[in-house]
Amino acid sequence: MESLEDVARKTAVTLILEGISAANPREAVKRHLRLEGEKLVVGDLTLDLPNEVYVVGAGKATGGMAEAVESILGDRITAGVISVPKELAPKLKLRRVEVVGATHPRPGPESVEAGKRIVELAKEAGESALVIALFSGGGSALMEYPVEGVKIEEISEVSIALMNAGCDIFELNTVRKHLSRVKGGWLAKHAYPARVMCLMISDVVGDRMDTIASGPTVPDPTTFEGAYRVLKKYGIWEKAPSSVREYIERGLKGEAPETPKPGDPVFERVHNLIVASNILSLSAMKRKAKELGYNALVLTSLLEGEAREVAKVVAAIAKEIRRTGNPLPPPAVVLMGGETTVTVRGKGKGGRNQELALAAAIEIEGERGVAIAAVGSDGRDGPTDAAGAIVDGNTAKRAREAGVDPVAYLEDNNSYEFFRKVGGHIILGYTGTNVNDFVVIVVEKEARGEAA
Amino acid sequence: MESLEDVARKTAVTLILEGISAANPREAVKRHLRLEGEKLVVGDLTLDLPNEVYVVGAGKATGGMAEAVESILGDRITAGVISVPKELAPKLKLRRVEVVGATHPRPGPESVEAGKRIVELAKEAGESALVIALFSGGGSALMEYPVEGVKIEEISEVSIALMNAGCDIFELNTVRKHLSRVKGGWLAKHAYPARVMCLMISDVVGDRMDTIASGPTVPDPTTFEGAYRVLKKYGIWEKAPSSVREYIERGLKGEAPETPKPGDPVFERVHNLIVASNILSLSAMKRKAKELGYNALVLTSLLEGEAREVAKVVAAIAKEIRRTGNPLPPPAVVLMGGETTVTVRGKGKGGRNQELALAAAIEIEGERGVAIAAVGSDGRDGPTDAAGAIVDGNTAKRAREAGVDPVAYLEDNNSYEFFRKVGGHIILGYTGTNVNDFVVIVVEKEARGEAA
Repeated sequence: MESLEDVARKTAVTLILEGISAANPREAVKRHLRLEGEKLVVGDLTLDLPNEVYVVGAGKATGGMAEAVESILGDRITAGVISVPKELAPKLKLRRVEVVGATHPRPGPESVEAGKRIVELAKEAGESALVIALFSGGGSALMEYPVEGVKIEEISEVSIALMNAGCDIFELNTVRKHLSRVKGGWLAKHAYPARVMCLMISDVVGDRMDTIASGPTVPDPTTFEGAYRVLKKYGIWEKAPSSVREYIERGLKGEAPETPKPGDPVFERVHNLIVASNILSLSAMKRKAKELGYNALVLTSLLEGEAREVAKVVAAIAKEIRRTGNPLPPPAVVLMGGETTVTVRGKGKGGRNQELALAAAIEIEGERGVAIAAVGSDGRDGPTDAAGAIVDGNTAKRAREAGVDPVAYLEDNNSYEFFRKVGGHIILGYTGTNVNDFVVIVVEKEARGEAA
Repeated sequence: MESLEDVARKTAVTLILEGISAANPREAVKRHLRLEGEKLVVGDLTLDLPNEVYVVGAGKATGGMAEAVESILGDRITAGVISVPKELAPKLKLRRVEVVGATHPRPGPESVEAGKRIVELAKEAGESALVIALFSGGGSALMEYPVEGVKIEEISEVSIALMNAGCDIFELNTVRKHLSRVKGGWLAKHAYPARVMCLMISDVVGDRMDTIASGPTVPDPTTFEGAYRVLKKYGIWEKAPSSVREYIERGLKGEAPETPKPGDPVFERVHNLIVASNILSLSAMKRKAKELGYNALVLTSLLEGEAREVAKVVAAIAKEIRRTGNPLPPPAVVLMGGETTVTVRGKGKGGRNQELALAAAIEIEGERGVAIAAVGSDGRDGPTDAAGAIVDGNTAKRAREAGVDPVAYLEDNNSYEFFRKVGGHIILGYTGTNVNDFVVIVVEKEARGEAA
């Protein structure tokens, strides 16, 4: 007979696969874009399909997105250029859309080649044309077109210095957008007056559209003034290449053009749509959980914090469901997403999801019918070949019986070795998409498992 | 006009007061105990009121519980002895029940006097008698009756050594129960064959009845063997007083009696009922939130983890409600409880609830209509005169404008000074009860606040 834990684990894995499938670039585009006769239906919007259709974009998942667009529009596509990671480029099956293989996370000359060609295509597009833009995680590095006088290596240098100094993604983008001819709404400006339809897969916690791939088609609320302040704040201004300082100084004096701002008429021709994201995946997982007969809720897609501490809250929720049926009576599923962090103190190997799962295993020891899984939707958790891990109330005990002390492995940040020895890895390979991490709690009802 | 934040803050404070009121010892007893003619109704149970009724107990909230019992049973009480903190004893208005004022958290001679008198009273009670036992937090220290040959100071010494070595409450109680004539079910054994009705206020996360005041009326699953292992594990065995070692060795050889175990017929005469606890308060708060027109859920009463990291999860839930209406559409209330911890790194003054609130303020900066409050239900957060604090999306900005950097104060564990300067303390004085901490998230709907 299947144990309650087996049932719970199976459900958790099913839900994770559902979440990843909802973020699959091909599926996500197909769910949001279709041709009805001569009409193009995109989300809530219906357009006459024009004679000229261009496809542009950049990102790790953009290849799959472009394949879906080609499968829908085929020869109706006039031309296109996308930029994807070098290693993925040869695998794509595209007839109308050209592919540039570029480097990431550090942009290279191919990123600039892609940036230039995409800007040229956008400029070519006439008023009656449609530009379909496809952006996903990694797009910032894979596509760039530096402002005049600034080299891509100089932008890289400044970006790395900022990241090492601890700036956040919003601050980093403020600077990058003000050194770019394609980011921060510039792509939309170049395409104007063509209509722009931008489909995005969000790898940014909170799904701020101006942050995904640095928002090439999104109004930019940041300024040269803000870029200057960020560089000053982190002590980078003085060390920055003179070309960067000079360009930003020109901007401060009004001699270089500001990025297109909210309210710019350019954006009346632009429609931005997120087709896959953490919250969209969590919603799909919730639907699936309900289909499977569970009470289900999405708690948050904005999870942050130290993985082992977040695990305590996750475990506390699982145990409360078991004990009092709050917030949902079992059989119950609680879904979370986001991106936790790990402060490395030990010498082991692991990732934030495996560490969260290991810490949760310690907290739920002895609980019946509970499974907790944590995975990276891209299929890669830290520098390991696992997407994440799954645990239940028996995991910690089973580990100790096998001579593996869960607390010691957690102390050593050695979650990968823990699961290699004890079992519980979720291994999916690269999934071809990234909408951050999923954390799934499944709590079975006694009777349910016993009847199974 | 009231701002959205004002509305949210007011609701959060109302709910906290509701939670504390639900845990008020007098109210809690009155909700669960009443006289109907000659019948005593206790929870789901109805008993004929016998001629002999004894009242015993110990704990910081036990005075209020005894007052409620006297107000219900009056002269029907034959006799009684309770033990409460020295400073509270003179304030109690009791006619039939005698009060011993004892010391805590370190037990003293008064604790032993109380323990002996309570055991004597229990032994006096005949088969037809009813013993009403009233336990609450602090009961372990306020009432003790050491086994023969062991002194109270020796038990204290061992307890302190164990706590300093990092043992948990379950391990500590395993040892204490095996050195006591009143804990670990012994009180029920002494009272047998009298009927025992034990009402408890739980200050233990998870409400394990054998842990509240060390479970004088609850079957004890732990053993001499377990007590020995705990003392060995923390390296205390060798240093323990010889009287303690000798008694436990006698127990290991079967020469000293084991604590009453689950299945012992003694417990057929015992009814244990938790009348106030974190989850009972959270449930009352949820009802109140619904009355006030909010969507509401209880997430967990088992919250643990580093306060500043837990705050990130709390903030992530608040922001998701605002953004997507998950897990509940606004106006929404999410309720949590338990006990977080603070790893002190700075030199400031604060408590776990104030630290959680300060960290949450940083995380929710700029969110509209959100309030987050964290308080200790006993009215004391850390070594401060505040019960906790409340924050909203403007707190962090307002602080900086006043020259108070929230991040710096958090780094210095200086949450008390932060709220003293910026405002946001919740100050309640001693509440006279303790069911751990409450964390309340309130998220207003735009229209609601604007209409207000």
